[in-house]
Order: sequence, then C-alpha cells, then structure tokens
Amino acid sequence: MPTFLGQNQYGKAENRVVKITRDGATHHIKDLNVSVSLSGDMDEVHYSGSNANVLPTDTTKNTVYAFAKEHGIESAEQFGIHLARHFVTSQEPIHRARIRIEEYAWERIETSGAGARAGADEAKHSFVRQGQETRLTQITYDGESWEVVSGLKDLVVMNSTDSEFWGYVKDKYTTLPEAYDRILATQVSARWRFNWTDDAREMPNWEESYEQTKKHLLQAFAETYSLSLQQTLFQMGSRIIDHRGEIDEVRFSLPNKHHFLVDLEPFGLKNDTADGAVYFAADRPYGLIEGTVLRDGCEARIPVDLSNL
Amino acid sequence: MPTFLGQNQYGKAENRVVKITRDGATHHIKDLNVSVSLSGDMDEVHYSGSNANVLPTDTTKNTVYAFAKEHGIESAEQFGIHLARHFVTSQEPIHRARIRIEEYAWERIETSGAGARAGADEAKHSFVRQGQETRLTQITYDGESWEVVSGLKDLVVMNSTDSEFWGYVKDKYTTLPEAYDRILATQVSARWRFNWTDDAREMPNWEESYEQTKKHLLQAFAETYSLSLQQTLFQMGSRIIDHRGEIDEVRFSLPNKHHFLVDLEPFGLKNDTADGAVYFAADRPYGLIEGTVLRDGCEARIPVDLSNL
Amino acid sequence: MPTFLGQNQYGKAENRVVKITRDGATHHIKDLNVSVSLSGDMDEVHYSGSNANVLPTDTTKNTVYAFAKEHGIESAEQFGIHLARHFVTSQEPIHRARIRIEEYAWERIETSGAGARAGADEAKHSFVRQGQETRLTQITYDGESWEVVSGLKDLVVMNSTDSEFWGYVKDKYTTLPEAYDRILATQVSARWRFNWTDDAREMPNWEESYEQTKKHLLQAFAETYSLSLQQTLFQMGSRIIDHRGEIDEVRFSLPNKHHFLVDLEPFGLKNDTADGAVYFAADRPYGLIEGTVLRDGCEARIPVDLSNL
Amino acid sequence: MPTFLGQNQYGKAENRVVKITRDGATHHIKDLNVSVSLSGDMDEVHYSGSNANVLPTDTTKNTVYAFAKEHGIESAEQFGIHLARHFVTSQEPIHRARIRIEEYAWERIETSGAGARAGADEAKHSFVRQGQETRLTQITYDGESWEVVSGLKDLVVMNSTDSEFWGYVKDKYTTLPEAYDRILATQVSARWRFNWTDDAREMPNWEESYEQTKKHLLQAFAETYSLSLQQTLFQMGSRIIDHRGEIDEVRFSLPNKHHFLVDLEPFGLKNDTADGAVYFAADRPYGLIEGTVLRDGCEARIPVDLSNL
Repeated sequence: MPTFLGQNQYGKAENRVVKITRDGATHHIKDLNVSVSLSGDMDEVHYSGSNANVLPTDTTKNTVYAFAKEHGIESAEQFGIHLARHFVTSQEPIHRARIRIEEYAWERIETSGAGARAGADEAKHSFVRQGQETRLTQITYDGESWEVVSGLKDLVVMNSTDSEFWGYVKDKYTTLPEAYDRILATQVSARWRFNWTDDAREMPNWEESYEQTKKHLLQAFAETYSLSLQQTLFQMGSRIIDHRGEIDEVRFSLPNKHHFLVDLEPFGLKNDTADGAVYFAADRPYGLIEGTVLRDGCEARIPVDLSNL
Repeated sequence: MPTFLGQNQYGKAENRVVKITRDGATHHIKDLNVSVSLSGDMDEVHYSGSNANVLPTDTTKNTVYAFAKEHGIESAEQFGIHLARHFVTSQEPIHRARIRIEEYAWERIETSGAGARAGADEAKHSFVRQGQETRLTQITYDGESWEVVSGLKDLVVMNSTDSEFWGYVKDKYTTLPEAYDRILATQVSARWRFNWTDDAREMPNWEESYEQTKKHLLQAFAETYSLSLQQTLFQMGSRIIDHRGEIDEVRFSLPNKHHFLVDLEPFGLKNDTADGAVYFAADRPYGLIEGTVLRDGCEARIPVDLSNL
Repeated sequence: MPTFLGQNQYGKAENRVVKITRDGATHHIKDLNVSVSLSGDMDEVHYSGSNANVLPTDTTKNTVYAFAKEHGIESAEQFGIHLARHFVTSQEPIHRARIRIEEYAWERIETSGAGARAGADEAKHSFVRQGQETRLTQITYDGESWEVVSGLKDLVVMNSTDSEFWGYVKDKYTTLPEAYDRILATQVSARWRFNWTDDAREMPNWEESYEQTKKHLLQAFAETYSLSLQQTLFQMGSRIIDHRGEIDEVRFSLPNKHHFLVDLEPFGLKNDTADGAVYFAADRPYGLIEGTVLRDGCEARIPVDLSNL
Repeated sequence: MPTFLGQNQYGKAENRVVKITRDGATHHIKDLNVSVSLSGDMDEVHYSGSNANVLPTDTTKNTVYAFAKEHGIESAEQFGIHLARHFVTSQEPIHRARIRIEEYAWERIETSGAGARAGADEAKHSFVRQGQETRLTQITYDGESWEVVSGLKDLVVMNSTDSEFWGYVKDKYTTLPEAYDRILATQVSARWRFNWTDDAREMPNWEESYEQTKKHLLQAFAETYSLSLQQTLFQMGSRIIDHRGEIDEVRFSLPNKHHFLVDLEPFGLKNDTADGAVYFAADRPYGLIEGTVLRDGCEARIPVDLSNL
C-alpha cells in the first residue's frame, strides 16, 4: 500500500447538556456543550472498516449524559476530567481522550418585589443568559498525565482612548497616517494552560481560577496605555501569569476591530477625537494579532492556531 | 405594459456608527447599526432607470454619520426621528422614511483598584460589551405622523420549574406525554409600539422606557406559573402594557427552546426533575409561539412576521 | 382586563425531513426544512393556559414525518398543501394553517468510469449538495382558498459591466461620484405569488414553474443594461410575469453588494475598468433595494418585509 | 520579568479582493478572501510597544490589492506565493509569511438565446456564484523553502445507501442498534499538502490540481462501500495520493451528519430503508471523524486541528 494512516481521532461533538441542581426552591444551572475526541489503536477501522476497537460516538454521547447525573458537574474542568479518565481507563484500545467544553453563563432574574404569587420568589429558578463571553476548557489525558487548557472567546472590549500607533515601518505600499489617539477594540479569544498535570497534586479551584483570570485579563486591557495591540496582548498575558500561579502559558488571538474616524469635512464638520467623535465600525478586513506569553522556564504547548472548540 | 410597480423602498442598510462623548476623562459610548429605507415618487427609476428622483444610498449613509455629529445620539429613537424627519422634509420625492436601528450595550470594566498607571482610572474609558439582548427600534415618518416601534431580540431566558403542559388535543399523530414539571426556555424577540405619534405631544423618555419595559418583560416571565408558553406570552405583554402607559401594543416571537429529560434508565439511573435532572438542549425543530397583546381599544399595527432589523 | 389578544399563531418550526425514494438502484432525494404555523380559536390558551384547543407542536412535527411517508414529497408546494389541508380540516379550532418550506438541492456525483466495484455505479445513490440558492415556498389555507408564495434566497449574481449610476439627486451630504461602468452584484431574495387559489382549478406544475422562474430571473438580470438596481429589479419581475402565466406578483429584496474600485494611485498604478480592474468587495453597509412587480389588474399580497422562511 | 514572549504573528485578515480580467467582451473573475500573517523579529513591539520593526497591517492590505493589479491572480496559490515572497524578502525583520486564501467559484449565466439586446450576449460578463464548496490554500515561506497546503470546506455529500455500521465495542453506556443500510452524509473539510517546496522545481498546475483532487475525493466517497466513516476517510485520502503525485499528505475533518430513520410505528406506518424511507436530519450532536493519510515515507505536517482559514 503506497499510503498509510497518520494522526486520527473521533468522537461525538457538541453534546448539549443542561443540569439543574435543586437546593430547595433555589435552583442552580450548568449549561455545557461537550465534545469528545478519542484516539488509540484505530488502524483497522480506517484500513478495513472493522469496528472491533471502536466505541461508537453514540456511546460517548450517552456517557456524557450519564456522567452528568452520576458525577454531577462541579465545574467544566472537573467534568471533563471525569470523562477523559473514563474513556482511557475503561477501553483498552483508547490511549488518549480529549474533552472540549463550552460553558454558557446564566444570571438570576430580579423579581418585582411585590411577588406575583403568594409566598413565591420565582427568581430562585428563573434565569437570563448573560451572553457575554463563552467559557472554554480542553482536557487531555493519556493515562499518565493531564493537560488542562481553559479560556474564553467572544469577549468584546474597547478602550475609547489611551491607544496610539506610530513609528512603524513605511514601505512603498504604506499610506496609513500615524495615530495619537485612537479606539482600540478587540474580540478576545484566549487560552491558558494550567501547570496541574498530575493526579497526585491537588487540583486548582477551577471556578475561582476562571473568574480571577477573566478579571485580570480585563483589567490589564483597561489599564494598559497602548502603543500597539501587541503590547496590550503581552500585558494581558503577563498580568494573568503574574497573578495566577496555576497558569504557565496564555495564548491570544486578537482581531483588531477597526473603528475609523469618519471624514466629515465634506459636510463642513470637524470630527476629531477631542469630544463627540463619530466612528465607522468596520467588519473586514481586520488586523489579527496572535501571540503566546509564557512563565519563565516553561515551554509552549498551546497550538499556534486556536481552533474551534 | 402588462406589469406595474407595487410598494418599493430603498436606502443604505447596516451603517455601523459608534459615537464617543467625553465628559472629562469619563467617556460615554453609543454603538448603533442604522438602516435607512425611503419611499415615494420612485416609479421612473424602476421603469426607465432615470435616477432624477433618487437620493443615492451613499448619501443616506453620509447623512447618518453627519447627523451623529451634528445632533448627537441621545437615544436610538431620538436619533431615528432626526433622520426620518430630514429625509422626508428635505427631499420632495421622498414621502416616507423608515429608520431601523440596532443598539449594542456596553458596560465599564472594573479597575484593579491598585491603579496600573499613576493617577489614572482607565475604567473611565474602557468598556466590555454586555452581549445579552440587542435593543431595536424602528421609526416611520410620512411627513405628518410618527410610528415608533421598539423592542429587543436574542434575550434568552429559562424557568427551570413552574411550567406544565397537559390537557391538549390528542389526534392520531400525538405521542407527547403530558408534563407536570418541565423547563420553559425561550429566546425572546419582542416589539412594542408607542402611542406617541404627534410632534405636538411630548415624547416618552426613550431610555427609561426601554429599561423598564425589559424589566417588566423579564419579571413577568419569571413570575408566571406557566401552563403553556402562550400563557406566558400573554402575561409578558399584559404586564408591559399595564405598567407602561406609553405602549399600546406588544408582539412576541418566542421559540420554545426544548430541553428534554434524558432517558438514563438503560444505564440504571433515575432522571426525574426532583433534583439533579439532566436535560438535552435541542436545536431544531422548536416550537414557535407568536402573538400580539393590545391595550383595550387599540388596533394592531405591528406586522405578523417580525422581520430582521 | 385592560388588554386583549391580537393575531397569534403557533406550531413546530424547522422540521428537517429527508426522503429517499428508490427506483431500483437509482435513488431520488428530497431535502426539506418544514415549519408549521396554525391559528384559530386560541384565546383560552393565552388567557388561562387551557390547552383544550391546542394540538401540540410536537404533534405537528409528527404529522410532517408521517405525511412524508404516507403522501410522499412530489414537490415542496404539493407537500405543503397536503399538510395545510390536514390541519384545517381535521381540527375544528384550527382555522388557518401556514406551511413554510425550505428546499435544498442535490446533484449526483459523477463516477470514475472505471467503476470501483464490479457492476455498480455508485453515482446512482451518491449526491453532493448544490449549495447555490435555497428554494422556498409558503402555503396558506383557511379552509376555502389557497395562497401559494414560492421563491428563493441567497442566489448571488454579478454583472461585471453594463451597469451605470448617474443623474441622481445631489444634496449637501452627497459625495458619491457618478459611475459609467461599475460592477452590479446582489444576493437575490425573491418571492412570487401564484394565481392558483382554488381546489377546483388544476394546480401548476410546481417543479417546472420553479426551474423556469429561476431561469427567467437570472436571464433578466444578465440581459438588462442597468442604470440602477431598481431598474434591474423591475425587469426581473416583469420577465417572470411575462413568461409565467401562473404568477401574478413578485417581490424582491436586493442588497447592493458594493464592489469598490481600489485606489491604487498612491502606488503608481492605474486601476480603471478597461481591463484587470481590482475591487474591494464590501460587507456593510450595503444598499437595500426592495420592490414588488404585479401583473396588470392584480393586487399585492406579499408582505413588504420578506421575513425569514 | 517573570514572563516571556512565545510564538507570535500578525497581519491583516480577510481582505476581500475581486479581479475582473477582460478578454474583449468576455470577462473572467477571481474572487478571493486573503489573510496575511507575518512573524519575525517582533519582541520589542510586545515588550515596549515600539513599532520600529512593524510593517502595519494596513500596509499588508494595500499590498494585497496592489499585487492583484501588478501580478494578476493566475491562481490562489500563485498569488499567495507572490505575496509571501514579497513580505519575507523586502522586510528584514520579517522571517516568515503565511498567506491564507479562500476562493469563491462563479459560473456564467446562460442566456435566453433570443438575445435581449441586439448583438449582445450578456452571459459573457454575467455570473452566478456556485455556492458549493469554498476552495482554500495556505502558503508559508521562510525565505528558503515553501509549504503549500490547499483544500476545501463545506462540501456536503451523501450516500443514501451502501453504508453499514456494526461490530463495534459495546460497554454499559452503549444503546445504539447495529445498522446494515444507513445514510452516510458529511460536510467535508480537507487539506492537502504539496511536495513542491523549492523554487528550483517547477510548480504544479494549481488549477488543474484542484479540479482533479476534488474529483477524486468525490468519486472515492461515492464508490466506497462503507463500514465506517473512518474507512471512507482513508479511501478518500488514498485515492487522492494515488492519483496526484504532487500531493503527499491529506487531512480530513468529517462531521457525521446523522440522518435518523423516523419511528413511524405509532402511526401504523412502516419506515424501513427498502423504499421511501423518511429521515430526520439532525444538527447536534454529530460524530466527528478526523484523520491524516500520508504517502509512504512522508511525514505529517498539517496540524491536527484544521483551523479556520
């Protein structure tokens, strides 16, 4: 045979799991999108179509739902760890499991105070989806050690000033004027890798870690006087690593969502940034700034291209 | 000629306007997507291609940006009123203008307290997009009277209990079991029509009206013990009209976002709603419940099919 | 009660139905997305939550699948007629049914000729999705007469010349230069209404009607030397009505997909349309041209805003 | 500083370029979406915000449009090679350029024959977008050698029979019944790597290579009697490598687009696959089968996760 099989993986993608836990009348919600990807001794199914080593993707789906009941969903990370361990330890031909999870956040609806129904406070089990960023995690297990990469996507942020861009290379195709007061806006896609790899060590507090990491990311964005989006990227990554000892590596993919000052001179109007500036928010093309920030002494493991969860 | 021209309209759609107003170091942001649609004496451009009565769509775009500077953006509704009045009163062939606006909400980023730069508090001009619902408005003007229809889309809400569905018609194609404790979730698309139509009357406070209407909508959803999504729809509409004297009509389009209890019996697991229930969140198909609620004595004017802004 | 219920409708949306009919080894495929919407005597479910008149949306879904088996899918229109008649005639409280259908086209995969397996010609049951436009239909029935509105969306067309735009109104916000050779491109959304309304009359050949109507639409686009997109719109509508006696009304929603000549002068390059012109294909904003063309003596019935099927 | 910079890259993404070449009245169209990504000596811009080594992303955009005029667009691959070579050889701090291109195919509109205008045949410059798959290429250059990875996405294919799935592992979470006649459908995302790496060697004929590779992919899909989607994946990859000497590696990401036989027994209907079977086309979850096929003796270089072009 003049061809052979390289890396391969399979599983059920995008299992939408919602779990409602009741604490009396007060309900709690976990809303996940779980994708399973398995690899191992799978040559035969590719070469001959023999499924003798193949746990069906339908079974991986069933396992996701059954585990949500059996083990609960303490956090997306903890849930992914349960699942990955199960597939690798229960099926001999499976040598590696990767679980990717998206999590959607909900907040409680505030009640009218008056109370529509006697004695009831519906807000205890009524929710509105926050709709801001989507939380992400990816758990990989090979039977020996763990890799946990969490993150977020679609977090849109803007500084309406304190951003400049000048002093750049000018070649024959350069027409961009230098800017000393511009809008800096981006839709953050970030992934951060934990240094927890070993069952023998205590796990991080995944929920607190996420909240704190997002907070540091946002604050670094807001508090960096920016001479380039690259500088802001590095500050966001460094701020996270400085404050979160459990994280060794952060990668960002940051589209530069351009806001162009509209030329209003043809209409006799001045449109400078001093006050009341009007911008055109452009879709495409956009700058795309990507980079990794690492803790001293650590090696990069997050892939260069942040793929779709 | 065996054919003739019926209703027609034209303009520039989806002008993305961002306006930053500075109050010292504190900035304010308005982030709109504005679509202009004009109609009037436009037979010739269709029949012969003569553009003699056509104000170019490019000009309508320019007007949007120039007006954002000249008149500011007090609210989406007020901005649309400025634009609609301009097109109808300044161009004789234009008899009617319809302005549709989407508005995206931003909130300030909380600072780290420590203050990254001496004396600065970046949160004054740093924002994160809320990402929850999209606010909508549509302004129509024919030179005499106004119609203002505001609303929202993509507001996802869920009651994790206090919803039942039983006692329905059963025909030969009915297999659905009755439900006495189910999840009720929907992605609200709503439009409400104001009774302000006349320049001589004082306008409503558009910003306050939106905040209060959204609040009542959410509370009615949360506080209704639901026997059907139709009942919840009517309660949401009634609650708005009861509390907001400026609104005479509300229309909803409510996809019933089904959450099915997963059958875990094959795995020896009970999955009832008493506690820790696991649901499959389905995409398609979905129930779609649509309806209008009116103030007594008022006539419906919002179209049956809520079209895309 | 100070509020009352207006127009309302409900049903199951987006039922994805695929039917495979076998003619020996040769298979035929129908791939539909069917949405059901019913209305009638439904006050009580809104006012009190009583479902006594409510056929569940789940039942409407089951009916779609059962009818695909029982009646087959001769065409999207014929299938919708079967469904609409059933709901109105079998359920007393249901007075009106509207069925909307999207249809996706597939073509056969060409074989390698050599024949991979002895005696087999896999192309007989192997398909690739065409991916061009999406075909649409909407059937409405009130127990007495029919309204059939078919159409298409997402058909992207371009004339790379034979389009001009000049002689338009110029006001203080006009900066657009006149154009004597421009690209005209649009993403056609069209709906056409049939004059078949009565069971006693013979139905049109729905499949042939669609193929011919699309052909005339494309040819009119290609063969119109255009002075405005409005002119092209009218020509497309007229061409259809002239050639298709079964159609009385056509409505279009035509985004003007702008292709701007790039200014290459800063780089010492001429970029005129004579040959080798380079364009920037813009996303937003876009012109939006909408209009109805009618057969003489007919009244318009297609709504102004083409909503999502 | 306790952190340092890892891999980074930047450029302008999604430059939408349309080029019209005229051959008398016959026009030809190239419609591309070009993304530029550069890396090299870029530490300072991240650490201090100095842009001294940064060619602005706006300049990379200008270069794309200027090159479309100066060099033409013979093929997406050839165009990417021009661009990548330019950035690496003209800017000392830039050590590596990666150009990603999406290409959209258009076909000519057939004329009415009668000829709407005397002597004119509009089809010579009138086009309709094919809308099937999106063609992709990625060119990477480091100043010494080339890597060209082309491919496609969103090619939806279906075999309505000749697919089975049985003999798989059964664990306690397995409920799937074995299938001996099922629909096999997928939305192909594929990437193939060329063995052309050296300027001294003659380049492949990129246009012919694409057409032939797509043809072999489709035929292998159609002509494989499938016992698993993995088997089909391997056959598609092998067929390409067997027939196309210029390609050494193919990677696929194949969502298993499930079509479930609807259970119509509650309605007294048999729904087996013998004829007229009715399927529910499901959205999520879906199986996801990914794998690489290599020419003997070659090493894999396409990343495991096919990212978004």
